[in-house]
Amino acid sequence: MDYDRMPNFDLKRYLSERKQLVDEALEKYAPAPTGLEKSVSEAARYSLFAGGKRVRPILCLAAADVLNGSHEVVLPVACAFEMVHTYSLIHDDLPAMDNDDFRRGRPTNHKVFGEAMAILAGDALLTEAFSLIAGAGEGAQIAADKLVRVTGIIARASGYRGMVGGQVIDLESETREVDLATVEYMHIRKTGALISASLEAGAVLGGGSEQQIGALTCYGRHLGLAFQITDDLLDIEGDAHVMGKTPGSDVAKNKKTYPALLGIPGSREAAQIHVQEAVAALAMFDDKAEPLRAIARYLLVRKA
Amino acid sequence: MDYDRMPNFDLKRYLSERKQLVDEALEKYAPAPTGLEKSVSEAARYSLFAGGKRVRPILCLAAADVLNGSHEVVLPVACAFEMVHTYSLIHDDLPAMDNDDFRRGRPTNHKVFGEAMAILAGDALLTEAFSLIAGAGEGAQIAADKLVRVTGIIARASGYRGMVGGQVIDLESETREVDLATVEYMHIRKTGALISASLEAGAVLGGGSEQQIGALTCYGRHLGLAFQITDDLLDIEGDAHVMGKTPGSDVAKNKKTYPALLGIPGSREAAQIHVQEAVAALAMFDDKAEPLRAIARYLLVRKA
Repeated sequence: MDYDRMPNFDLKRYLSERKQLVDEALEKYAPAPTGLEKSVSEAARYSLFAGGKRVRPILCLAAADVLNGSHEVVLPVACAFEMVHTYSLIHDDLPAMDNDDFRRGRPTNHKVFGEAMAILAGDALLTEAFSLIAGAGEGAQIAADKLVRVTGIIARASGYRGMVGGQVIDLESETREVDLATVEYMHIRKTGALISASLEAGAVLGGGSEQQIGALTCYGRHLGLAFQITDDLLDIEGDAHVMGKTPGSDVAKNKKTYPALLGIPGSREAAQIHVQEAVAALAMFDDKAEPLRAIARYLLVRKA
Repeated sequence: MDYDRMPNFDLKRYLSERKQLVDEALEKYAPAPTGLEKSVSEAARYSLFAGGKRVRPILCLAAADVLNGSHEVVLPVACAFEMVHTYSLIHDDLPAMDNDDFRRGRPTNHKVFGEAMAILAGDALLTEAFSLIAGAGEGAQIAADKLVRVTGIIARASGYRGMVGGQVIDLESETREVDLATVEYMHIRKTGALISASLEAGAVLGGGSEQQIGALTCYGRHLGLAFQITDDLLDIEGDAHVMGKTPGSDVAKNKKTYPALLGIPGSREAAQIHVQEAVAALAMFDDKAEPLRAIARYLLVRKA
């Protein structure tokens, strides 16, 4: 690790401050728990404020920062990414899907609110993400053509060619043998697409050139894969207390992970390569890209 | 009925031609059944092409027609409404929700593809709707500000303050007594919001003034309520063969319907009032609004 290359950058503090910024914005943008339909808002908020690290919103903001974008403009879109991410967790945890009872140390949405409400809370969060992006244009703070582009980026990353497609392949892989190419194809969609999209959207809103948007998206693709590989490694080597979930659950569910296919040393090497590629993609940017570089390198030493 | 007021307008033929136009466009825009994730596209297409009447796309096109809007511009958005509608049917039919085995005479999505795939197929269709709207701006056929506005209209109508909220109230009403105000509050959201939104979006894309958009939205609100009331009446009085589903299912599930609260004559009267109000809202428009007037009046004699 070459943290000594950035003696003045405190990643832990940066992430904590950004998380607080995102949490405050989410509090404002989350479904309001009022009206006859308030139970679905309460269910949505339960999962939205369940201790998420806000990785995607922080990446979206960081991409815009590289290009001197305004936080005021980016925050609604950053929060939309967290809503899409949270909806995917609620639906993934359902009994018909991964059937998980706990997430981040708390009972999953359907264990608290029931299956019907969990399905609807997920549906509500996915829909609200798009409502939020569209509303960000009111008062014309953001040019409409950028909002349309961002809508397309987040929709394609989340849909059947993105996150939903990855989840489908993941479910179908539990009962059959798959090779590394399939696992990578799956993860690029299931985890990578939304992470990459959060950087692409931040770059678009930050007013980047096509070359700059492309570089930040490339960073995002490698970061997404490194994130997934290190996530798989944590499931084998992690500390349950630090992670807030029980290690070994992937193996128990016959999930097709990187360590299962590459072994632990091979997976560590793959993560390292993707982190290097992610950092290399940022070569054109100055010190304002330092948080993104630090986030990529941090994946190699993450404990949760 | 005053069909004699429009001797030259053949509603049946109009609806059939428009349904074909929408079906052809949906064939083009529906998730492509290719790639490792093709099973979710197949599941989505199963429900998307299950014999729907295409009410919302037809209304969206008809609203634009009143203002001389171009079909080429409106069709992607019209299809997005059908995708959102289809997603809502797939999720509503799930065992945790209404637990329906048949819809339009065919097994429901989860009976054919399993619960996990049905949840994901619904998620995919909802997401694809927004992808389609955003893509409609590529090549700049539609002004971006109109697309952002339409995105907001469809998202708000579908979300926790719209369709999802209505479904929540519907589910919660099965186990408690509710009054007419609650039933109306529920239906305005569960069915009315998306129908009204399809007219509002068509009016926006057709280039209407705020007054014209408001009039078409008002028509949509009354049409949506008349549609729901006549739907409730059909569930009591309808012919199973013509409807493709078994009458009496609302009563069996303790659904809170208009006939249960207003009686059959009272419900017929309420439907008539909403049809009158819907037609009255179109007073400022010329003969190009005749299809919308005919559709409203048709609700009072519908058999399916």
